[in-house]
Amino acid sequence: MGLARRVAIIGIGMTKFGALGDVTTRELFTEAAYKAMLDAGVTHKDIDGVFVGNLSSDVFEHQMHLAPLLPDYLALDNIPATRTEAACASGGLALRSAIMSVASGMYDVVLAGGVEKMTNLPTSQVTEALAMCSDDIYEANLGVTFPGVFAMMARRHMYEYGTTPEMMAAVAVKAHDNAMLNPYAQFHKKITIDKALESPMVADPLHLYDCSPITDGAAALIVTTVEKAKEFEGQPIEVIASAQTSDTMALHDRPEFTGFRSTRIAADKAFKMARIERKDVDVVEVHDCFTIAEIMALEDIGFFKKGEAGPAILEGRTRRNGDLPVNPSGGLKAKGHPIGATGISQVFSIVEQLRGVAGPLQVADAEIGMTQNLGGSGGTQVLHILKKL
Amino acid sequence: MGLARRVAIIGIGMTKFGALGDVTTRELFTEAAYKAMLDAGVTHKDIDGVFVGNLSSDVFEHQMHLAPLLPDYLALDNIPATRTEAACASGGLALRSAIMSVASGMYDVVLAGGVEKMTNLPTSQVTEALAMCSDDIYEANLGVTFPGVFAMMARRHMYEYGTTPEMMAAVAVKAHDNAMLNPYAQFHKKITIDKALESPMVADPLHLYDCSPITDGAAALIVTTVEKAKEFEGQPIEVIASAQTSDTMALHDRPEFTGFRSTRIAADKAFKMARIERKDVDVVEVHDCFTIAEIMALEDIGFFKKGEAGPAILEGRTRRNGDLPVNPSGGLKAKGHPIGATGISQVFSIVEQLRGVAGPLQVADAEIGMTQNLGGSGGTQVLHILKKL
Repeated sequence: MGLARRVAIIGIGMTKFGALGDVTTRELFTEAAYKAMLDAGVTHKDIDGVFVGNLSSDVFEHQMHLAPLLPDYLALDNIPATRTEAACASGGLALRSAIMSVASGMYDVVLAGGVEKMTNLPTSQVTEALAMCSDDIYEANLGVTFPGVFAMMARRHMYEYGTTPEMMAAVAVKAHDNAMLNPYAQFHKKITIDKALESPMVADPLHLYDCSPITDGAAALIVTTVEKAKEFEGQPIEVIASAQTSDTMALHDRPEFTGFRSTRIAADKAFKMARIERKDVDVVEVHDCFTIAEIMALEDIGFFKKGEAGPAILEGRTRRNGDLPVNPSGGLKAKGHPIGATGISQVFSIVEQLRGVAGPLQVADAEIGMTQNLGGSGGTQVLHILKKL
Repeated sequence: MGLARRVAIIGIGMTKFGALGDVTTRELFTEAAYKAMLDAGVTHKDIDGVFVGNLSSDVFEHQMHLAPLLPDYLALDNIPATRTEAACASGGLALRSAIMSVASGMYDVVLAGGVEKMTNLPTSQVTEALAMCSDDIYEANLGVTFPGVFAMMARRHMYEYGTTPEMMAAVAVKAHDNAMLNPYAQFHKKITIDKALESPMVADPLHLYDCSPITDGAAALIVTTVEKAKEFEGQPIEVIASAQTSDTMALHDRPEFTGFRSTRIAADKAFKMARIERKDVDVVEVHDCFTIAEIMALEDIGFFKKGEAGPAILEGRTRRNGDLPVNPSGGLKAKGHPIGATGISQVFSIVEQLRGVAGPLQVADAEIGMTQNLGGSGGTQVLHILKKL
C-alpha cells in the first residue's frame, strides 16, 4: 500500500556517539533535535509532533514515560510526543511512525529521533538488559544473550555456506576504516584482519571485534511532506519506501538459522513500494550489530546470493569505492550502537550521502539509499528507501 | 488538521480485568485480540498491522520487545507490530497510532490493543515502577509516588475550590455501583460514602477507595476506514477526533496544581477536529486513576466549571441516568487499571454504548462518546471522540 501524501526528510542532526559520561537522555536528544531543526530551517512553531525511539530509559536511567520530557526540554510546549520501542529497531520505528503521521494528514512537520544512554551500567548488566529483547520464556530466562544468539547463527552460516572468520573480520576492518573518517563515530582506530581474529573470544566464533559496542548517543530527523518541504531551507530527500515486518521471537520456531525471513519479506515490500530494483540502490546502511548480521542482511535483502556476501566483503566490493558501498558511516560496529538512536542515525548517514555532503565518507553518484534496522534477533525489521528529489 | 481517510472501529474485545494469576502478557493480549477479530468478522488475512500499548512488560515480566510476540501468538505471520509507551496513556496512544496508520494509506485494517500483567509483583514494587513515569530527576528519585502527586493536587483543589472528601468518595461510590453491572470489572462490591471515608488513608487526603487498583488485563480494537468497514460484519463506530498533547513532567514547572493544561489543550483540539460542542457528548470515559482525577478531568475537558464537578458528582449528575453519564463502565477505579490496556478498554466501553449493546450499563440515546486517557501526572493526554455512523 502507498502513502496518502508523499513524505520527505528535510533536516538531520546527531550527537557524537561514544561513552559520553555524565549526560542525560533528555540532554542528548535535545542536542540532536536542535541540530536537525537548524539544518531544516524549521522553528519551534513549525513542529506538530515528536516521535522517539528508545529501548529502555527505564533500565538505563530509571525513567519511564520518556517522550513528554523531550518537547519540554526543546521548549516545544505541549506538542504531542510518542515513544516507540522495538528493541534495536526502536529508532527505525520512530521514523516509520513519523512518516505515517505526516502521510495521515494529522501532522505536517514532525521531529523523529532516537536516543539511548547506556554506559551508566556495567557491561554485564547491559548485556542482561538487552537479552530481555529475546523471548524471555524460551531464551533470556535460560541464559541466552545476543552474542550467543548471533554466534549460533554464525556457526550455522559457516557450516552451510563456508563463511569464514576472516570474512566476518573483514566486515569489522571495513567498519573501522570508514569510522576513521566519521567525526560522530565512537571508534577512530584502524584494525586489521589479524588483529580482529586475535581479539578475545566473546561467543565462539564471534571475537570482540565481531561485536558492536555499548554506546551513548542520539540522532534526529525532521519529516514533512514533499509539497511542504519547499517552504523550508533543508534539502529534502524523499522517503520512497517504508517497510516493517515481525517474526517469531524464539529462534526454535523459525525454519532456518542462517538469515532472517523478516528481512526478506520487508525487503520485498520495500522494493515493491519504491518501484525500484535491488541494482538501483547506490548505498546502504545495514544493521551490523555483529559482523555476521551484516553478511546475513546483504544476503536477505537480496544484494548477494546466500553464501556470497562474505567473499564479496573480503574482496572489498562493499567498501566506499566498491560496487555496493555498505555502511560507509562505520556502521553499528564502529560508529557505535546507542540502541534507540541507531535506526535514525542510519537514515542520517543516507541523507548525507544523497545530499552529497558526506565529506570523506561520500560515495560517488548516490541517488538512492537504503537502511535496514533489525530488532532483537530479527523479531522486528524496519527498512527504508530514500531518494534524491 | 484532519485525517486523509475517515476511520472507524469495527471490532472490540477484552479480557476480564482483575488479579488473573498465572497467565502471561502474550496470552492476555491474544484473548482480547481474538475477541475483537471475531466481533469485527475479520480473519487473519485481513490484518495489516498490530499496535500495542504497554507500560512495561520489562519490569513486570522481564520481557522487552513485546510487540512481535503478539502477531506470533495470534498466528498473524510476519505482520508488523509496534509498541507505544506513554505511561498510563500507552493504550490511547496505540489507538491513535493505529488511526494514523490507517489514515496514512499504509494499512487498511489494523489491530490496536493494550495489555498489562501487573500483579506478579508486590504492591510496593508496582508503586515504585509506576513512579518512574514521573520525572525521575525531580520527583521519583526523591521518593514522590503517584498517590502522593495526586494527593497534593487534591489538597490544593480542596483549598481553592472547596472540594470535599465526600465529593471524591462519591466518585468511588458511583464507580463501584457501575462496576457491579460490568462483567469485565475487577470489583463487584457495593460501597458507600461512609465506607470510602473510613477506608485507610493512602496519601492524605486520598483514602484507599480514592485509588484505582493494580490490575491484569487486555483490550483490543479493530480499526479500518469508514469505507472499508462496509466489507465486515462488526457495526462501525467512527472516530471523529483524536487529540494528543504533552506537558512538563515535573509538577514544579506547571502554572497550577488543580488541573491539567494538557487536558484542556487536547480537549480544545478534539472538539475542533470533531466539529461538535461539549454539550453534544452523550457519554464519557475519563481517566479516574484517583477520584480527584475524575473531578479535574471533567473540569478540564470543559463539562463543568472549576470547582463545580465535585458537587455535580455528589448530586448524581454523572450517574448513568444523569445529564452527563461518566464512566458507566466503572472506570479505572472499579473496572480496574491494567496500565497499557486502560486507554483501549475506555474505547471498548464507548463503542458498546454507541452501538447500544452495553446491556445494564447502557445510557439512553448515546450517539457521541468521548474518552480521556492520561499518562503519568498529565505529561501525556490522549483524547478520542467517537460517533455512531
